[in-house]
Amino acid sequence: EASLNASPSTAGVGVDQELISSVPSGNPTFVARNFTDAEIAYCRSQPSAQASFAARWVGKEAVFKSLGVSSKGASASLKDIEILPNETGAPEVTLHGDAKAAAESKGIAKILLSLSHSDTVAIAFAQASST
Amino acid sequence: EASLNASPSTAGVGVDQELISSVPSGNPTFVARNFTDAEIAYCRSQPSAQASFAARWVGKEAVFKSLGVSSKGASASLKDIEILPNETGAPEVTLHGDAKAAAESKGIAKILLSLSHSDTVAIAFAQASST
Amino acid sequence: EASLNASPSTAGVGVDQELISSVPSGNPTFVARNFTDAEIAYCRSQPSAQASFAARWVGKEAVFKSLGVSSKGASASLKDIEILPNETGAPEVTLHGDAKAAAESKGIAKILLSLSHSDTVAIAFAQASST
Repeated sequence: EASLNASPSTAGVGVDQELISSVPSGNPTFVARNFTDAEIAYCRSQPSAQASFAARWVGKEAVFKSLGVSSKGASASLKDIEILPNETGAPEVTLHGDAKAAAESKGIAKILLSLSHSDTVAIAFAQASST
Repeated sequence: EASLNASPSTAGVGVDQELISSVPSGNPTFVARNFTDAEIAYCRSQPSAQASFAARWVGKEAVFKSLGVSSKGASASLKDIEILPNETGAPEVTLHGDAKAAAESKGIAKILLSLSHSDTVAIAFAQASST
Repeated sequence: EASLNASPSTAGVGVDQELISSVPSGNPTFVARNFTDAEIAYCRSQPSAQASFAARWVGKEAVFKSLGVSSKGASASLKDIEILPNETGAPEVTLHGDAKAAAESKGIAKILLSLSHSDTVAIAFAQASST
């Protein structure tokens, strides 16, 4: 007798890109509204804080897209999508608040994320999967 | 006694990008050959029709790559890969004709797609999975 | 009685991009250090060898990210991540040496990769999955 595994299945994918110069990381209100204290501390510790904020910004947008929730009228705070490096330096996603609730309601158990930036452009790819 | 689930497995991924200015969305022949009536109506309703056509164009290319079929000599019509917004506004892929037949022959049951454009560049990521 | 399938699950994703002009594909030392003989022969046979080397370069970086191993202090050779076209022309990843060992230690059985380049930018997306 065997209990069946629930097969993990990709629920959604998300891609986002921005010119690094278009992300207003020098604006304290923008930063405080969209980034957690831990994210701010991390970005400011990096060689280019501006590139690091921009990469996280597109990362949050990509994760949001991967959740497959409507953006119309929703005021889901991107601060609820927290992106910090894990022990290998790779970006790891932690959801809080409304973003966490949205993921749970859709059965999303894991979000994988990768970030990249050149001198001028930041890009992110996210994949949300159920268990 | 248990029937085994067929585990969903990713069959292919596809990424594509183009300068928005390089997609000839002002050319009626190009548009009619590559986009369905519903896609054309949708793109023309958007704030930037040009950006919307370009995003769909790279989306079609990314989906084509995710199908893992040969592009050599094939005249698979990109019109057979239709991309329209679902109820949340996210892009949803519907296959027709040869693209549908190619997907079925490879056991592909689902294609996830995400699109993004900046002022100048459109980018798309697609993931095809079996059931 | 049923043996349970191990469900394939995505272990990691990776995205990378570079300006094609920033990849020193005209530098024989760089090329010999990072590309296999088969990759070099393939890239040199393409319409733009420079774009082809750049696409493979970001492909290797994306695959490396998808493996989820630390880049700190590691000298994992990107030559161990070999990218060659399969029979349909799509990029296929073969791991050697340390990259192969890292993948095996994490239970990674399959890596899917897609490459794209415009006139100026090369981009890659990789997805590593277990069996």
